[in-house]
Amino acid sequence: MYVIGIGKTKFGILNESIAQLAYKAMYNAILDSPISINDIGIIFVSNFLGSHHQKQLHLNSIISSMLPELRIPIIGIETACASGASAFYQGLMALSRFENVLVVGVEKMTGNPKMKSIENLAMAGDRKLDQEQGMIFPANYALVAQQHMIRHGTTHEDLSLVSFKNHKNANLNPLAHYNYKHVTMEMINNSCMISSPLNLFDCSPISDGASAIILSRNRKSDRDVKVIGSHLATDCISLAQRKDLTSFASTKAASANAFGQAKISPKDIDIAEVHDCFTIAELVAMEDIGICKPGESKHWIRKEMTGLNGDLPINTDGGLKADGHPIGASGIAQIYEIVTQLRGEAEKRQIDKARIGLAHSVGGVGGTAVVSILRGMSL
Amino acid sequence: MYVIGIGKTKFGILNESIAQLAYKAMYNAILDSPISINDIGIIFVSNFLGSHHQKQLHLNSIISSMLPELRIPIIGIETACASGASAFYQGLMALSRFENVLVVGVEKMTGNPKMKSIENLAMAGDRKLDQEQGMIFPANYALVAQQHMIRHGTTHEDLSLVSFKNHKNANLNPLAHYNYKHVTMEMINNSCMISSPLNLFDCSPISDGASAIILSRNRKSDRDVKVIGSHLATDCISLAQRKDLTSFASTKAASANAFGQAKISPKDIDIAEVHDCFTIAELVAMEDIGICKPGESKHWIRKEMTGLNGDLPINTDGGLKADGHPIGASGIAQIYEIVTQLRGEAEKRQIDKARIGLAHSVGGVGGTAVVSILRGMSL
Repeated sequence: MYVIGIGKTKFGILNESIAQLAYKAMYNAILDSPISINDIGIIFVSNFLGSHHQKQLHLNSIISSMLPELRIPIIGIETACASGASAFYQGLMALSRFENVLVVGVEKMTGNPKMKSIENLAMAGDRKLDQEQGMIFPANYALVAQQHMIRHGTTHEDLSLVSFKNHKNANLNPLAHYNYKHVTMEMINNSCMISSPLNLFDCSPISDGASAIILSRNRKSDRDVKVIGSHLATDCISLAQRKDLTSFASTKAASANAFGQAKISPKDIDIAEVHDCFTIAELVAMEDIGICKPGESKHWIRKEMTGLNGDLPINTDGGLKADGHPIGASGIAQIYEIVTQLRGEAEKRQIDKARIGLAHSVGGVGGTAVVSILRGMSL
Repeated sequence: MYVIGIGKTKFGILNESIAQLAYKAMYNAILDSPISINDIGIIFVSNFLGSHHQKQLHLNSIISSMLPELRIPIIGIETACASGASAFYQGLMALSRFENVLVVGVEKMTGNPKMKSIENLAMAGDRKLDQEQGMIFPANYALVAQQHMIRHGTTHEDLSLVSFKNHKNANLNPLAHYNYKHVTMEMINNSCMISSPLNLFDCSPISDGASAIILSRNRKSDRDVKVIGSHLATDCISLAQRKDLTSFASTKAASANAFGQAKISPKDIDIAEVHDCFTIAELVAMEDIGICKPGESKHWIRKEMTGLNGDLPINTDGGLKADGHPIGASGIAQIYEIVTQLRGEAEKRQIDKARIGLAHSVGGVGGTAVVSILRGMSL
């Protein structure tokens, strides 16, 4: 199972429709690959809020409208903020039947003044247990952060360091939502409070964008990247149903399974993209994946071990925090970054000797988690 | 590839939540099968309007909440009114990796006085080309009916005969939405006009309900039914993009492929469930699948050839028209009926010598079509 093509639009506040964004990402992925659109056997499309923001469902047929006479199977996938990663996981499964699979994720979140993004995003939580109690997502992750601070002594400064690193990385990523050249720790620490202890700079933005990946059963060129493990795991939807708020059982199950498939351990990975919808989520992910022990992520971020020049660079594209978080596209954009790095094509943000990369995506507050592990073929 | 368990709730106006309905269908399917929930490797859940009617997305995690500690992959599928059938198609693909797969479809469409079902259902059409022009679905299928009448001489009486047959079948189906004992041709013909030439009785109802299927890679019991062909095809989303309104290219492509896999032809099937969201859709489906030639469906319905005692009984459960159309569940309910018939367990509506059955589901106005062919193992 190989990634043979990748495509992405700029992430940010974009004046393009959901169809235009999806088309551009798919077009770029096809151009990047050695095959043509006619070689694609099936397409998976991931999206989360099209029904509310664009009054548009049935996106698989919207994609079909761009490909007249092709009539191939196209299927819509939704697992909240992990939709893109789930579509990727699904795409891998489809290689049992098709030689080439296209996976595209798209989200158009800005531009509709009537939309209520925060309210709509809360549909990733439980209607009764979460939404009706005011448990929108900043509040969910604030509870996680509070518990992590109490149990492990993580500080607000640690969270700010995650944000600082990811913004610094995004400055080297021309497709990132944010290219603030002068984000400082002072700006981050003094940004307005959203849900204590999370400030504005602890939260990922509302972004538009699309990303696409082409998968193939067989290797096609030297630029291909091999998928050596991928798993999706689920958990109950609401924090109210959990025993422990400082760890996500879905991430643990998905990563253990993916590492088992890959026959490697967390110390073997050279680069990772983890789901940093809020800064605390990056630290929790590091611990759940097994990059470090529970409570030790604070030491890693303090010692810059996850920076571009650190032992294990994390979120080199800026992460959801600064590359942006167009929901349906985010999980696929992580794969885009891992592949770019493993190919040695990441230019100013290129990591030395990146051979094995991991992508980790979460839906809701851990209701879904997908972990995929990829290996470059050139080193 | 075998169906080893089936479950369904009553369809209709139900006082149960989306989670309760899904649970009941899954529970019934597990009870009907020779395996336990712990033997399931992956679950696919199909739903269309949860985001609008229940403010609930991330249904895969809602399902996970019912199955604590299981943590298996669960993925949400959406392809408009074909969502259930697409989840079934997806489930078959997953048998390459898992021994047993559960597919559940659910929709809760009534009970929220603020919901606008007709407006929300229009999200299966294109926002710009359809919705903004007032092309809601009764209008779409009215255009199809008008063109079919002009080209093929199909009459309004023919449409009424479809409705009459399907209501008669539903009377023998205890789980059907409608059990009107005395539906007459006069009632159907005189029902209020919705979108000319479609009257109220030409339209499927707004229903709640859930259905579930368990698939297995290997045969497990004498009651198993084999899946011998299944394909999903797509087409552009809007009628405004089509050359011909009297035929759906997606149905033709999906059925040709499914028959190819099954190595049989339309004359070999003994029973069919086709997508009769509106009466005209049943006639068009018969022609596109190849049950009869274009324009000949009117003769079949006039001669009662698709009745319970006809050459090829169609929609023996009452179809979407009278069994009901809880969107995410409908495509799976068709498989439920085919399996029930092929097992010889359909009681009062049982067909003689039903050996091979076909299920056909459509999303939007042909933007998606899924055709699956099953063979009973007992005859």
